[in-house]
Amino acid sequence: MNSSDRRIAVLGAGYMGSAITFPITDNNIEVNLWGTWLDDEIIYLCKNNKPHPKLDRHLNPQVKLFYSDDLDNALKNIDAIIIAVSSEGFTSVYDILLDKMDVEKPIIAVTKGFVEKDDTVYRISEYADLMYKKRFGENIKWASIGGPVKAVELSRRVPTATIIGTASKIIRRLFNIFSTKYYRISFTDDIIGLELSSALKNVYAIAMGICDGYYSNREDDLYHNFKSLIFMESIEEMAFLSKYFGALKSTPYGLAGTGDLYVTASSGRNSLYGKRIGMGQRADTAYEDMLKGDKLVEGYNTLRLGFKYIESRGVDVEKDLPLYDILYKIIFEDGRYNGQLDELPERIKIS
Amino acid sequence: MNSSDRRIAVLGAGYMGSAITFPITDNNIEVNLWGTWLDDEIIYLCKNNKPHPKLDRHLNPQVKLFYSDDLDNALKNIDAIIIAVSSEGFTSVYDILLDKMDVEKPIIAVTKGFVEKDDTVYRISEYADLMYKKRFGENIKWASIGGPVKAVELSRRVPTATIIGTASKIIRRLFNIFSTKYYRISFTDDIIGLELSSALKNVYAIAMGICDGYYSNREDDLYHNFKSLIFMESIEEMAFLSKYFGALKSTPYGLAGTGDLYVTASSGRNSLYGKRIGMGQRADTAYEDMLKGDKLVEGYNTLRLGFKYIESRGVDVEKDLPLYDILYKIIFEDGRYNGQLDELPERIKIS
Repeated sequence: MNSSDRRIAVLGAGYMGSAITFPITDNNIEVNLWGTWLDDEIIYLCKNNKPHPKLDRHLNPQVKLFYSDDLDNALKNIDAIIIAVSSEGFTSVYDILLDKMDVEKPIIAVTKGFVEKDDTVYRISEYADLMYKKRFGENIKWASIGGPVKAVELSRRVPTATIIGTASKIIRRLFNIFSTKYYRISFTDDIIGLELSSALKNVYAIAMGICDGYYSNREDDLYHNFKSLIFMESIEEMAFLSKYFGALKSTPYGLAGTGDLYVTASSGRNSLYGKRIGMGQRADTAYEDMLKGDKLVEGYNTLRLGFKYIESRGVDVEKDLPLYDILYKIIFEDGRYNGQLDELPERIKIS
Repeated sequence: MNSSDRRIAVLGAGYMGSAITFPITDNNIEVNLWGTWLDDEIIYLCKNNKPHPKLDRHLNPQVKLFYSDDLDNALKNIDAIIIAVSSEGFTSVYDILLDKMDVEKPIIAVTKGFVEKDDTVYRISEYADLMYKKRFGENIKWASIGGPVKAVELSRRVPTATIIGTASKIIRRLFNIFSTKYYRISFTDDIIGLELSSALKNVYAIAMGICDGYYSNREDDLYHNFKSLIFMESIEEMAFLSKYFGALKSTPYGLAGTGDLYVTASSGRNSLYGKRIGMGQRADTAYEDMLKGDKLVEGYNTLRLGFKYIESRGVDVEKDLPLYDILYKIIFEDGRYNGQLDELPERIKIS
């Protein structure tokens, strides 16, 4: 089959949903880009030949645009669906999607994090599979996308490495077609490890932001050793969790964990949020302030839901995840930073 | 044995040799700090109660100071020797040391990199063991120190994680005594993996510096994806080499590789050197300039010797280490940066 016969639906016209249309359409594959009810203005602007307002760039002509009330048409004649909404919007979009789908299609998620339904927290792929089985009586053909991919840079065709977690050969073949000179794709079977890393790197980037905000204000920039200690502890805790949940311990050491944390800690809203806290702002105020500026801090919600997910499945957070524990207490108990990270070096496990 | 009965000789009174005296003497262990012929002025100043000129800090009173012509006395009544000279000075100091040693002692090296003797390149521990066997007919009791440790920060007691590669129980016990609230020590048996990581992270930090220097001058700071791709490729190449040389593939993913590269790429002379090249300076001129400013770029020599070491042992650098290959060509063939890193994304191995 020629790549030009393919068509992909992308749900969510925010940063990542729109950015991922670039490598796909650069391969001459058509994209139906559907905007959620929050994206109607974006769709309107793009339909009127304006640049995408978040990416500040015109989308490729192979991208067909669909308003939120036109999901049925967006799903017509497609080979696969990429979901690229925020983790907070995932369940509602996904539930509608399953309702509208008449035949089975591979589903690929850029969305990272945890979702909560009826007081239970799930990994996104876990929730997706559960609902899919209810609807179709079959296992889902699923992929999670991970790795260090900032959307604006992808839309500029900055060389980017990504990793796809999937057990589906169909999806692998599809992504092999998506690959371009600037969009380098690798694969793993370890969906759970990739998903945990992708979600939790947003949490740990907050800790690194706190370190930046607090220490870069003091003395002569002398906190690199400590920052690296925090970076490595973040990865070790992701590796612990990956193993704990039956996934590969090695996944967080690769693109999905280390690679993505590297990017996320050096730029982006999660580390910026941490920086504000490190500089003295209250954790809740900082969150609200950024939300008002249209900057949803995903790591904030992932920290809370992740805690519930991890604890409810028997992990001793205080003992096994000291950095996670300290961060949770800063943000949801103490409410501000008073040097709590100072206790980390004595609490990390050393071998 | 009480810690106060212990005494450690540290050879080399530059940054790291002097910095490591802090956690040791904070544990009430005496240190004999011996300066090489390049360090006599440092020793003079410290003996006269001035701050250490590189660390800009007074050493602890438990540090006894020895001029370069007084090595015999520096080696009296000691439990172990820490070598902290530059890789260029290693063989000459080590050869003298073996000459002076009358009984066997554990030897610990902060020195990272490769050494060359009679046109053969060795890892430092390899050379050390070879010479030790000649001298004593026994295997050396050896440790290599790795991990993200900037000397100035260690001397400020900034929380620091380090990793010690050793097969010696005696050395493990010793380091357990060196540990402090701020100096967190972990261990590995994998000396080779640690040594390769510690040496090569200086090389790869140059590549990251080039990326910084080149791209941070252009467009709106949009090169995080690419920088992370380079970061991860650095670690993957270290992992490839670690495995190739019979060591653990996992070692570079930990403190010795990822952790140390994280620090080295964000500050320090190797990344600074790369930055100059990325900004357009010739590779040799940049090296000479920095040397004049008393800033020896260790990664420059490690790149050259490492290449010889790796090639002479059968690695296909062009195929298996594309980033190393590109960097080597930039610095020792083309002599300047003309965007050669752009070919990396297509050359990396993807799985």
